[in-house]
Amino acid sequence: MVPFAERMSGIKPSDIREILKVASRPDVISFAGGLPAPELFPVEEVRAAFDAVMEENGRVALQYGPTDGYLRLREQICRRVADKNQIQTDPGHVFITAGSQQGLDFLGKLFLNPGDTVVLESPSYLGAINAFRQYQPNFVEVPTDENGMIMEELDRVLATTPNVKLIYIIPDFQNPSGRTWPLERRRQFVEIISKYGVPAIEDNPYGDLRFRGERHPSLKSMDTEGLVVYFGSFSKILSPGFRVGWMIADEQIIEKVNHIAQASVLQTATVNMMTISKYLDMFDVDEHVAKILPVYKHRCELMIGTMRETFPEEATFTDPDGGLFTWVELPKYVNTRELAPIALERKVAYVPSSGFYPKGDVHNAMRLNYSCATDERLVEGVKILADVLKGAIK
Amino acid sequence: MVPFAERMSGIKPSDIREILKVASRPDVISFAGGLPAPELFPVEEVRAAFDAVMEENGRVALQYGPTDGYLRLREQICRRVADKNQIQTDPGHVFITAGSQQGLDFLGKLFLNPGDTVVLESPSYLGAINAFRQYQPNFVEVPTDENGMIMEELDRVLATTPNVKLIYIIPDFQNPSGRTWPLERRRQFVEIISKYGVPAIEDNPYGDLRFRGERHPSLKSMDTEGLVVYFGSFSKILSPGFRVGWMIADEQIIEKVNHIAQASVLQTATVNMMTISKYLDMFDVDEHVAKILPVYKHRCELMIGTMRETFPEEATFTDPDGGLFTWVELPKYVNTRELAPIALERKVAYVPSSGFYPKGDVHNAMRLNYSCATDERLVEGVKILADVLKGAIK
Repeated sequence: MVPFAERMSGIKPSDIREILKVASRPDVISFAGGLPAPELFPVEEVRAAFDAVMEENGRVALQYGPTDGYLRLREQICRRVADKNQIQTDPGHVFITAGSQQGLDFLGKLFLNPGDTVVLESPSYLGAINAFRQYQPNFVEVPTDENGMIMEELDRVLATTPNVKLIYIIPDFQNPSGRTWPLERRRQFVEIISKYGVPAIEDNPYGDLRFRGERHPSLKSMDTEGLVVYFGSFSKILSPGFRVGWMIADEQIIEKVNHIAQASVLQTATVNMMTISKYLDMFDVDEHVAKILPVYKHRCELMIGTMRETFPEEATFTDPDGGLFTWVELPKYVNTRELAPIALERKVAYVPSSGFYPKGDVHNAMRLNYSCATDERLVEGVKILADVLKGAIK
Repeated sequence: MVPFAERMSGIKPSDIREILKVASRPDVISFAGGLPAPELFPVEEVRAAFDAVMEENGRVALQYGPTDGYLRLREQICRRVADKNQIQTDPGHVFITAGSQQGLDFLGKLFLNPGDTVVLESPSYLGAINAFRQYQPNFVEVPTDENGMIMEELDRVLATTPNVKLIYIIPDFQNPSGRTWPLERRRQFVEIISKYGVPAIEDNPYGDLRFRGERHPSLKSMDTEGLVVYFGSFSKILSPGFRVGWMIADEQIIEKVNHIAQASVLQTATVNMMTISKYLDMFDVDEHVAKILPVYKHRCELMIGTMRETFPEEATFTDPDGGLFTWVELPKYVNTRELAPIALERKVAYVPSSGFYPKGDVHNAMRLNYSCATDERLVEGVKILADVLKGAIK
């Protein structure tokens, strides 16, 4: 058979998806995923919404629909982002995706020639690195501290790097670090990208999952140049199994994304968009989020508390105010990729740090997810992990 | 802002989607779409299937799921293609897509470097041309006759064209021509591609919509080299609004498609795969298809009959045995792209031929869809179109 395309040499299986395969075994305590807690899914409400869609509008729901997405849902998203993220927009600037991963693929396709540069936080979301890698870019990582991306470093990178076509950031409860950018950095960020005219993806799947402290305005709400593309999703506040997310962007980007979607996938499933829209009409999704938050807060505090009690003192970790993850940093000589099979043998799964760095060259950290385990298993898993880590500390 | 990627110069809005925007106005009689008849959708059955999924397995359905798709659905697809298409396979060779358009994007990504060649029937499906165009290939068209692709021409093309990486064909009720390949051509095709080792996509969305004559075996069923990638879909037999299709391919292709899907979209919506799977368990989809077929047969015969009565004698058209389309050919000097706005002014929509040719250089044909109009509107629309065509005939 003919050879595969050159781009395929960079398209590798995701560490997470591969680990998740093992981690999904019921005997494994998994801190590896980024899954919402399934026991909190509003199954009955979703069912009622679907029934209502079928009752009122079944034939439309089962048919092809517009490429940019169901209009009523785009209107609802406009109201939501105005309320939650201080973004003033209209449905013409909203494009429905089959989840934000698809949005990453679309924007990689839109902006990246082979050899162009993508700028990322260090570490960054593994799935974004993999999405962009399909378009054969170079990656430049911007150093971070406990408040996220360091703006002086970003400015330096943009001043000195040719062909930067895209910046990718997660300012709220970052994946994997759990960190959130304070207000001042957000302002600086928008100023800096405006100076260089470089578009940025503000990926915000976790923003609504804040269980402590005050919300910050989105980068998009401060953007006067149309450079920020804002990504939101129903995956973490409602259901990832529906695969419905959205992007908000400048007209010229929305227009091109529309053409890409026509060529790549036609549209997001009509029935999914209409069911979520109906759910938002029939129920208060914020009431649902209000039920999730204390559970995630409790699990986060239980994980952090147990880590404080049991982890070797050489380990440091973030204490996030929301989202799904904490990030554990260890002495440089500890290799979490080598420890992963040892932990898995003891039925505990996590994601080693290397996947969150484009060069795969940082091995002394790990991402832990706390949203998905019962108290007992969570404590047990952390204790086992503590034991594994102690064995690796010199 | 930074410039868009080079590939974007080839990614244009689809003729169909743009015309469909106008055609969806209720006062327009549209022969432009490829939509199943919505009044035939099994709305109540789909609702029952969804309810059962929520009842039995709601938390799994609303959660992330495996990249290659829900296992039970892949098993059901294996049984279906064994029964209908004489394909013997197993779930490990089946990959669920969010519709076949996504499969086209994935295989373009997998095989095409810029400048590689894709071989197509002439004319071919506009959406496939647009999907592949994202990867900047050359297109080589193989001439067709009333029995589809001419095999001597295919052999000649493959013998003389460098870097052919992919062949795309629709052997059953082709879009746009409505033509079906006879058995002997199928055998020849598989022989020829085996000689050259070139992979081929056998796109078969319409195969189950046969209302006359006997089924032919699929190309995939004759393929001993693992070169044929078979595409099937629930869009035309059940519902396009669910966006669920599948591909069947050799292991090495499935493995790479899995990596592409992880990077591009993660997975097809869990809830959609489980609902369709449950529908197939609870109901007989072939009974549903048996209800569709006489309606499509009737509409096809009514359209063809009315065209025979009213179209200028210079027009020739296919009389398909199934599927959704007939293809009208006119004298060389007639330009259907220029006639389209005239027809639209008189509230009739169709798709002009140019979009079905990669170079956009054939203007004297049009695609008509018969599946979606009532008898009265169908006859009225054909008569108006006849009138428009007569005005263009010298």
